[in-house]
Amino acid sequence: MIRSHEAGTLRKEHAGQTVTLAGWVARRRDHGGVTFIDLRDASGTAQVVFREEDTAHDLRSEFCVRITGEVRVRPAGNENPELPTGEIEVAAAEIEVLSEAAPLPFPIEGDVNVNEEVRLKYRYLDLRREAVARSMRIRSEGSFLVHEVMREHGFVNVETPTLTRSTPEGARDFLVPVRLKPGHWYALPQSPQLFKQLLMVGGLERYYQIARCYRDEDFRADRQPEFTQIDVEMSFVEQDDVLTVAEDLVARLWKEIAGYEIPRPIPHMTYAEAMARYGSDKPDLRFGNELTDMTEYFAGTSFRVFQAPYVGAVVMPGGASQTRKELDAWQDWAKARGARGLAYVLLQEDGTLGGPVAKNLSDTEKAGLAEKTGARPGDAIFFGAGAPHATRELLGAARLEIGRRCELIDESAWEFLWVVDAPIFEPVHDDQGEQIGWTSVHHPFTSPKPEYADDFQDRPGEALANAYDIVCNGNEIGGGSIRIHRAEMQQRVFDVLGLSKEEAESKFGFLLEAFKFGPPPHGGIAFGWDRMVMLLAGQDSIRDVIAFPKAASGYDPLTAAPTPITEQQRKEAGIDVIPDEDEEPAQA
Amino acid sequence: MIRSHEAGTLRKEHAGQTVTLAGWVARRRDHGGVTFIDLRDASGTAQVVFREEDTAHDLRSEFCVRITGEVRVRPAGNENPELPTGEIEVAAAEIEVLSEAAPLPFPIEGDVNVNEEVRLKYRYLDLRREAVARSMRIRSEGSFLVHEVMREHGFVNVETPTLTRSTPEGARDFLVPVRLKPGHWYALPQSPQLFKQLLMVGGLERYYQIARCYRDEDFRADRQPEFTQIDVEMSFVEQDDVLTVAEDLVARLWKEIAGYEIPRPIPHMTYAEAMARYGSDKPDLRFGNELTDMTEYFAGTSFRVFQAPYVGAVVMPGGASQTRKELDAWQDWAKARGARGLAYVLLQEDGTLGGPVAKNLSDTEKAGLAEKTGARPGDAIFFGAGAPHATRELLGAARLEIGRRCELIDESAWEFLWVVDAPIFEPVHDDQGEQIGWTSVHHPFTSPKPEYADDFQDRPGEALANAYDIVCNGNEIGGGSIRIHRAEMQQRVFDVLGLSKEEAESKFGFLLEAFKFGPPPHGGIAFGWDRMVMLLAGQDSIRDVIAFPKAASGYDPLTAAPTPITEQQRKEAGIDVIPDEDEEPAQA
Repeated sequence: MIRSHEAGTLRKEHAGQTVTLAGWVARRRDHGGVTFIDLRDASGTAQVVFREEDTAHDLRSEFCVRITGEVRVRPAGNENPELPTGEIEVAAAEIEVLSEAAPLPFPIEGDVNVNEEVRLKYRYLDLRREAVARSMRIRSEGSFLVHEVMREHGFVNVETPTLTRSTPEGARDFLVPVRLKPGHWYALPQSPQLFKQLLMVGGLERYYQIARCYRDEDFRADRQPEFTQIDVEMSFVEQDDVLTVAEDLVARLWKEIAGYEIPRPIPHMTYAEAMARYGSDKPDLRFGNELTDMTEYFAGTSFRVFQAPYVGAVVMPGGASQTRKELDAWQDWAKARGARGLAYVLLQEDGTLGGPVAKNLSDTEKAGLAEKTGARPGDAIFFGAGAPHATRELLGAARLEIGRRCELIDESAWEFLWVVDAPIFEPVHDDQGEQIGWTSVHHPFTSPKPEYADDFQDRPGEALANAYDIVCNGNEIGGGSIRIHRAEMQQRVFDVLGLSKEEAESKFGFLLEAFKFGPPPHGGIAFGWDRMVMLLAGQDSIRDVIAFPKAASGYDPLTAAPTPITEQQRKEAGIDVIPDEDEEPAQA
Repeated sequence: MIRSHEAGTLRKEHAGQTVTLAGWVARRRDHGGVTFIDLRDASGTAQVVFREEDTAHDLRSEFCVRITGEVRVRPAGNENPELPTGEIEVAAAEIEVLSEAAPLPFPIEGDVNVNEEVRLKYRYLDLRREAVARSMRIRSEGSFLVHEVMREHGFVNVETPTLTRSTPEGARDFLVPVRLKPGHWYALPQSPQLFKQLLMVGGLERYYQIARCYRDEDFRADRQPEFTQIDVEMSFVEQDDVLTVAEDLVARLWKEIAGYEIPRPIPHMTYAEAMARYGSDKPDLRFGNELTDMTEYFAGTSFRVFQAPYVGAVVMPGGASQTRKELDAWQDWAKARGARGLAYVLLQEDGTLGGPVAKNLSDTEKAGLAEKTGARPGDAIFFGAGAPHATRELLGAARLEIGRRCELIDESAWEFLWVVDAPIFEPVHDDQGEQIGWTSVHHPFTSPKPEYADDFQDRPGEALANAYDIVCNGNEIGGGSIRIHRAEMQQRVFDVLGLSKEEAESKFGFLLEAFKFGPPPHGGIAFGWDRMVMLLAGQDSIRDVIAFPKAASGYDPLTAAPTPITEQQRKEAGIDVIPDEDEEPAQA
């Protein structure tokens, strides 16, 4: 090593020792002919003192330097109790500039609000900032814990291919042309789903992988074209076996990294209850303020808007004092979510009801409203009416927005739950809102609960799945299911999905083929690792816990990828070759 | 769990207990109305006995079953000492067929020679075979050890992008069209080289990753289009620091998995010495039989063939008794390697010299030959003459072939060494063999040894690099270098490579840009993980230690990937869009 010590490890005990440090100039101060440098390396910082001006005169921020000098106890009164090395300083005797730094696009030290695209373009400078470096270390430590827990449980870490064939997750695949077979393309996997099921057929019994996955989706909110999931699959298990392993994993991560002991077992809530009470399949339980089902309440109403299959309400504490502008903004908020608006009643401090909806309600309806919804004087009550699922989702989103605006959320809390008994299928609608078929809520290999095993095909809208999602603070951090392992049942699922034998064969014929050879009962789960690390590191975006994330539209400001390619690359990769028609594409 | 015990764990102590097992029918024997089943699960096998014929009568190989019954000590004389469960059997009381198996394409049990493409098509059945499953478990355990060792050394596990821009390794990149930016493409990384150097600029100091890498190469020998490397980079280090970490890692793997304690430190050999003595930059030290440099010896020869810049010899013990056909086969062997042939002299038992070359040698040349080469009566001496590097490589290949044919290799031995001081550059030749430039032996960021730092550009053919390869039993299992961290030196390397400023800028401008901001001295190493696991698992091919390998040309017999794509996929991915000419491809 070209240094003898790491800067952040120096203590009083080192006083009198001559040390060689190497790192970066974090801060420089000049006081009466003496120069003080905070020298930063991965371990922390130490103060270096230059008593002869000339040795330090050309050092600027982020120069990379090597310094030799004696460790001294700082003069009384000059200690910095906030710094682990705050009791000592290093009196520089020799300095070598290992490399210089050009003027920085943004400062490394201190909290400076920098445009994210600039941060990503100079990600290597951003990584020198303490919070970013800390997130990388948390991710690393977390992934080690994953390996440790899964190994303790007897799981085998298997690397599955990433140059493969389309997988059935439903998003678009990224494609890769194959030079050695011109006109033929690999697909990058959206998950290792098919391979992990094949490993179960292969008798591996307990598989896991920290797997890179790829989805060519539009970049809504906080998505990346490549992301990482902890992928788990087990044979000869029932739902509880998978949940126990999953809880062991999550509990260890939260205990070791966040210092939080998750109460076990993690509570279960049915999908139906989650939708009814929270208007979400991933409810944030850090606050209450649940939805109230008003359908019965308004069963005989003469107000046309509330003559709907479902009417629900959510209270906004103190919301009656909102300005007209604020109340209008809620309407825009609802419209941006595809709703017509958000009906509301203002419960004035004097007990009277304000807002345009109130005058449409009968006296009885008005009289019981506060008690029914739990609203108190000064609160606003928001209403949704219409198709149950969509209306609950709207109110659930309003609940979250209220939680944020009214600061109802305990930011220091951790609230975990399992959402179970989700439907197997959900309707597919055309542009006019007409139902034209069914799609899988999870994926087509999800097994029905035993009570629907025989006749789910006759009542696809009711049938519930052996599926489970784990939710933390309103984030779905993982989900899985017990799979179908009988060809006959799988065929009935394909029938409901309207997937012809040929389509099923083309998309995952090799899995169906494998299922002819004694497949074991099996099930599994996959965790969104980026999101878990985001929560563990206390960050707001998965981009903060990815070393080199993409910006919007998949653009990488650092490397400027993606780029055009050359004519020669096109030619070599066989991109323009169209193979014979009798060969079958992966997606029919 | 749908079972109470794992089959392979049952022992005498379980006698009298009622157990439920689940697994596969490995073998079935019927004896006088009694049926014996070997039930296999991931833990091993146990014998299950059916005394009532009807319960077992439809069980066939690889049916997946659940069996409940009582554990009994086997009758005296019926024990199987070769099986851990050989003292007991399970008397079946209940059986449930979990799933049936169609007739198998090949048997799972026993050593059966199956065509590899068939094995890969039914890889999930192949994985049920003990040797294949064992390799998967060794790989898993090995990767855990990697994480453990690297964590102990303070390394941070960082996931780098796989949708990125071309990297400079020199093989062809796999390309990925980007739907959100039509006509623009990502490249899959040949290694995380640039990103790991950026992480060093980012102050991470100690990085590692078990990284998936991609090379669109022709499939020679034992290559895969995607492969895994253990990627390591460190800051503020010198060559010995990297070697120490690398040795710690390799030593732990061999100790824990192969039970072999590698003598430390692993010996060093210069590249020049390896080429001179073994005709290889990755010599197999499990046997001697070194090359003899005969250049001096034949300095005054009148034999035209040996009037060459280099003449070398390698002995084949007992080779004098080869038939004419065998000796001719050597000529074909040499021609397949691009040589004109392989001159030889046969040292007969009576001391006379046979073979067509002998008559071209002077008496003095003949007289000293045995002593000079160490050949004994009955041996053959093969000669190579010509350009030193190519000739040594030919003789080195002959040495390996001799080692195999004459069984000189101790298959139980482990021989490790570091090959150091490789050249920085090697000449590039055109089709006529004329040198037209220089290319990097490692990659363009490899630093020169200090004695060449100032003037390597004036003598590129001589300059040696701060580079190192680790070799195990003749396999290069890892390699790396101390990198250049000064822009001025990097520019001189680009100049030697004939890389214009624009080309360098286009290929890795972002790394050069990063190097303006205080890059630390750094270096690293990358291990070929597939090859290491192959050696640790005692397998002959990396395909044996990859869960789902590709066959030749990148074809996957299991999924039939790659496939044609649909017109819609082409359109959506923007494959046929050619962007404006002023945008710059990644490869100029």
